[in-house]
Amino acid sequence: MTSDHPVSQIDETVHQRYRLGIMAFLSGVERADFRTAREELGLTDGNLNRHLVLLADAGFVDVTKVAPEGKRTRTWLSLTPAGRAALDEHVRALRSIIDSVPDRT
Amino acid sequence: MTSDHPVSQIDETVHQRYRLGIMAFLSGVERADFRTAREELGLTDGNLNRHLVLLADAGFVDVTKVAPEGKRTRTWLSLTPAGRAALDEHVRALRSIIDSVPDRT
Repeated sequence: MTSDHPVSQIDETVHQRYRLGIMAFLSGVERADFRTAREELGLTDGNLNRHLVLLADAGFVDVTKVAPEGKRTRTWLSLTPAGRAALDEHVRALRSIIDSVPDRT
Repeated sequence: MTSDHPVSQIDETVHQRYRLGIMAFLSGVERADFRTAREELGLTDGNLNRHLVLLADAGFVDVTKVAPEGKRTRTWLSLTPAGRAALDEHVRALRSIIDSVPDRT
């Protein structure tokens, strides 16, 4: 039971809607802080954290905590080269699927 | 914690990769039989059935069994108008997300 349908190229780590949103957002910036990403996506701290753990474990997102002396810790997020490659592949698979939908307009 | 990010418009019923594949496939045909869809997507009978139950429960796909006298039963699948509308909305949200990814080529 094999198929070369583009759905078979979809990585669930990237496809989950919030993780796709996080990776797409990070693809357009050098890095973003946790609060900015949280507000961009409309997620709670807990939910964003949960998705970041999965993305970091996959090697797709780098999470770096920076604590300048006397200032509050900031958590910086950035897409890794592996994350960028996975996102590009995912975008290709999605385009292939959605381009197969006949346009009704 | 609200956001108008396009991920918030994504319906998980449609977004799951195989269900997206099934709906996109059905959008291009009047109807398809179960075996054709199974082979197109590269799914087992059990997995395709499981996704079809979810899609039928959501009102997105119509599943009709036809048993002509003396012939084996065929199961026909078609996208409902509600399914087509949900797919169109999903495609718009996905395009909005993937178009935000800077092109590197």
